[in-house]
Amino acid sequence: MQFFYSDQIFNDTIVLSEDEANHALKVLRKHQGDNLIVVDGLGGWYRTVIDNENVKDCRLKIIDKKENYNKPDQYIHIAISPTKSHDRIEWFIEKSIEIGIQEISFISSHYSERNNVKFNRIKKRAISSMKQSLKAYIPKINDVIPFQTFIENCSNKEKYIGYLGHSNREYLPSIANLGSDYCILIGPEGDFISAEVDFSLNHGFETISLGKSRLRTETAGIVACHILNIINE
Amino acid sequence: MQFFYSDQIFNDTIVLSEDEANHALKVLRKHQGDNLIVVDGLGGWYRTVIDNENVKDCRLKIIDKKENYNKPDQYIHIAISPTKSHDRIEWFIEKSIEIGIQEISFISSHYSERNNVKFNRIKKRAISSMKQSLKAYIPKINDVIPFQTFIENCSNKEKYIGYLGHSNREYLPSIANLGSDYCILIGPEGDFISAEVDFSLNHGFETISLGKSRLRTETAGIVACHILNIINE
Repeated sequence: MQFFYSDQIFNDTIVLSEDEANHALKVLRKHQGDNLIVVDGLGGWYRTVIDNENVKDCRLKIIDKKENYNKPDQYIHIAISPTKSHDRIEWFIEKSIEIGIQEISFISSHYSERNNVKFNRIKKRAISSMKQSLKAYIPKINDVIPFQTFIENCSNKEKYIGYLGHSNREYLPSIANLGSDYCILIGPEGDFISAEVDFSLNHGFETISLGKSRLRTETAGIVACHILNIINE
Repeated sequence: MQFFYSDQIFNDTIVLSEDEANHALKVLRKHQGDNLIVVDGLGGWYRTVIDNENVKDCRLKIIDKKENYNKPDQYIHIAISPTKSHDRIEWFIEKSIEIGIQEISFISSHYSERNNVKFNRIKKRAISSMKQSLKAYIPKINDVIPFQTFIENCSNKEKYIGYLGHSNREYLPSIANLGSDYCILIGPEGDFISAEVDFSLNHGFETISLGKSRLRTETAGIVACHILNIINE
């Protein structure tokens, strides 16, 4: 099975981008009258039939439609310090979407190695991962903001901060509740500083452990995301 | 904290490779008399002091030693079909070692996209990931063998095969036992074929699910490895 992506949806017609049309018509050799499944990244799932097999104007007719396609009961928000290597950020995007995530924020903290992310590359990777894993949602992805601003405005219900410095941290699988709305903060190489941790504790966050191993930033992000998915499976 | 790697250990002396010596002496500017922690990839952990600060002959004197450093109670063996992209294989190596794994096998099955792996690159990535995650073991890594040969010779205690085709599969976290010796088979894009699954079932394997999402091969490998680590945390 294969999903296509489009954000060009007009009543009962979908227009594919040239890239997507090229894949359908040239690579997979689909023709007028063939079926394609399209998702819109907002939970919309469409069974369509090819109406016009022109790569530059590939129109599809919608024959069936589902909203909130496979919408999960939980809401997982990972706020992560961007890694120096942009590849590792993109890898985090790809894997967290495969496993299941609803929102990604980038935070700039004391030891952050990077204060910007390449949104075009991230969006492309996000769409590709959504299609690959047969999902209909692209997570909400937020640009880099300062740690303090993020903490002050975070409105998720269960708020956790991964921090190696506290010895009395709870293991995430033992503390997170089922079907909830979670935010997990993942720090940079070098971790959060204690002032940041204290600030987050004063704003309703709890320190957590993600297990015994010392993990790279992007691995910690995936591990947190996977734990919350397992709890809710 | 930082670990160095060496397999050149002679009584109370360790010799660092030129790469490792360069990192210690030139990048981190360590000098004669400074302490270094060295691991040997076989469970050996050594506190040492630099005896000779020559990059081409960097000798360390062992002042403390631990065997079986942080050896886990469980044994996790992932047998995976190598992906077309070698980057994805190397990524699986890096992440599974960070999270915790004891043995990796590569299997050639009906839909495998590749029948060889680049051992030098894999070994380098494995050593780097072991050091990064402050471990002392490099997992056993086995070259590609045919699916049938692997199945006939697999001697792990709990044997599972990830397969999308069976509807009555158990979810791995619900079926795996604590502190055991596990083998998990992860198939290629296109999955195992039913003849392969039947063959594995006849040899004591059970089909399992890794969750609701459709995962890429290397992601399925990481997810399986992480689930077994969570159970044993």
